[in-house]
Amino acid sequence: MKHLLLAIPLFLSVSVTAAKAPVGIVIHGGAGTIDRVNMTEAQRRNYEATLTLAVNKGYQVLASGGSSLDAVTQAVIIMEDSPLFNAGKGAVYTWDETHELDAAIMTGQDRNAGAVASVTNVKNPILLARAVMEHSEHVMLTGSGAEQFAAARQLELVDNAYFNTQFRFEALKKAKQAEQRLPHQAAIIPDPNWKMGTVGAVAIDNNGNLAAATSTGGMTAKRWGRVGDVPVIGAGNFADNSSCAVSGTGHGEYFIRYNVAADICARVKYQGKTAAAAAEEVIAELLQIGGTGGVIVVDNEGELSWAFNTQGMYRAKQNHTGTVVEIFADQNEKTGN
Amino acid sequence: MKHLLLAIPLFLSVSVTAAKAPVGIVIHGGAGTIDRVNMTEAQRRNYEATLTLAVNKGYQVLASGGSSLDAVTQAVIIMEDSPLFNAGKGAVYTWDETHELDAAIMTGQDRNAGAVASVTNVKNPILLARAVMEHSEHVMLTGSGAEQFAAARQLELVDNAYFNTQFRFEALKKAKQAEQRLPHQAAIIPDPNWKMGTVGAVAIDNNGNLAAATSTGGMTAKRWGRVGDVPVIGAGNFADNSSCAVSGTGHGEYFIRYNVAADICARVKYQGKTAAAAAEEVIAELLQIGGTGGVIVVDNEGELSWAFNTQGMYRAKQNHTGTVVEIFADQNEKTGN
Repeated sequence: MKHLLLAIPLFLSVSVTAAKAPVGIVIHGGAGTIDRVNMTEAQRRNYEATLTLAVNKGYQVLASGGSSLDAVTQAVIIMEDSPLFNAGKGAVYTWDETHELDAAIMTGQDRNAGAVASVTNVKNPILLARAVMEHSEHVMLTGSGAEQFAAARQLELVDNAYFNTQFRFEALKKAKQAEQRLPHQAAIIPDPNWKMGTVGAVAIDNNGNLAAATSTGGMTAKRWGRVGDVPVIGAGNFADNSSCAVSGTGHGEYFIRYNVAADICARVKYQGKTAAAAAEEVIAELLQIGGTGGVIVVDNEGELSWAFNTQGMYRAKQNHTGTVVEIFADQNEKTGN
Repeated sequence: MKHLLLAIPLFLSVSVTAAKAPVGIVIHGGAGTIDRVNMTEAQRRNYEATLTLAVNKGYQVLASGGSSLDAVTQAVIIMEDSPLFNAGKGAVYTWDETHELDAAIMTGQDRNAGAVASVTNVKNPILLARAVMEHSEHVMLTGSGAEQFAAARQLELVDNAYFNTQFRFEALKKAKQAEQRLPHQAAIIPDPNWKMGTVGAVAIDNNGNLAAATSTGGMTAKRWGRVGDVPVIGAGNFADNSSCAVSGTGHGEYFIRYNVAADICARVKYQGKTAAAAAEEVIAELLQIGGTGGVIVVDNEGELSWAFNTQGMYRAKQNHTGTVVEIFADQNEKTGN
């Protein structure tokens, strides 16, 4: 009898570790001051519909045996093509009334990565980041050089005016009015919403491979060729099969200085924490020094999570248990489908 | 008697933990294929003299009560102003026969950071990185925007031809001849020496504050606006008083993907490893996937170390025990003063 009793937990233990992690995807469309008072019901439905479209698209890729890399790419493209988010079509304005876009992508299997900064004419920057990863010896390309590479790779190019939206132009005007600093200093950022709306996706596929993708128009009224955390691998985007995949959104300067995405994975890898707990810790520490924002995370066991220290984050996740789409902080996975 | 015996180790323990860490500095001038056969005695003396000048200058700052931030800045300026290293004056050529320089600086006390990428007319890019950290709300500025910021900060500007050197131009010609890839692809890098010569410094001051600074001309024959690891905070440069400060040199793409500088500090912080052991581990792991290069490290107890997986690394360190200046891998701190 003694031997039989011991055999049961051992058998269960082997069964759990050998089980394949379920495929799944998490996406975000930016974190910031998002409250019910300032959002109409129609706006809310619009955001929820686009988030649902993006997360469903990514999950379809995974469910049909596709790679996490394809899943995060497809989900991000849907958000880049929507004017709702500060990425692709809906990118914010720079100080000079243009648009400069950044993006990054990373695969957890081989920790390969691609990133682009300050591109002005590429319709889907995430596709350029992926081309850098897959078709160059480099990881990070910037500015007109990156655009030459995009043209050589025959990616879809657009005039910079393609990214114009009246809503974002009004935001620029407000930001400029608020700018009180000396002209030789870079812009201060009193309104956290100026940098809101970065999009991202993380996923795990049926080979257990993780991937992360992030795309942004950066910060309203940015100048001096400012680059935020998105194309800084380890800051706003990171993937490592030995721990987790992370995409961030928020005050990029803090995400760079605190190596946010990679630090979450390091706590999983070196401290044995769950990815959800590590993300909560890092986002809480970030707030202590004034850094606002959030992250989405998937670990190598298929656990999907998010953490943010703002009033809201546009977010959604999907796996075999269903779909969750949320916006406000006080929602707690009440919605599903 | 038993109580007396116990009291001695306790007293010593308190004494050790309360002792102030000694000030110290480590610098590097790049890692790569450096062997005795291809270096004349005159060349060797030239490198050693400049390394000595730079490390002494940084140490003087520390010994007179100055900050680690000032120490690393001063040491890097000396190497930037020398044609011997691939940074500042000695920067390599891009594919288009110009020079694009990157630099980064970080302080461990508050984890503040500044980085610049692809600047063409700033004599000392490390001063621009520092200006970004100290006089803007941003961490990373790129290209012409960064140059406008440099002009506004009244930093010394030079014509891009200031960075021309015959030695580097010959290297570009050789690199172009070796370029066999299709024209729509970014350059392959068969010769590790094309990206050799990045300079950097890490230091600890008498307040126990760490700092790291790194500056580079990047990779010979680079194009498409390629940016390496140097301005990617966490990849080639990182400082955190809770663990260590790191400056890297080598194949930047691998340093970005493997988050090298921050990963060394994470192993110190989360695994309790010494900075020297963590650096050895990470550099060994890097070589397993083909990434060549090295790092210099100082931890928050004042231990100075380096690790590299190449035939040599231009390097020097100085603290109260003296100065060490080395070039080849088979040197093992035999030289001193």
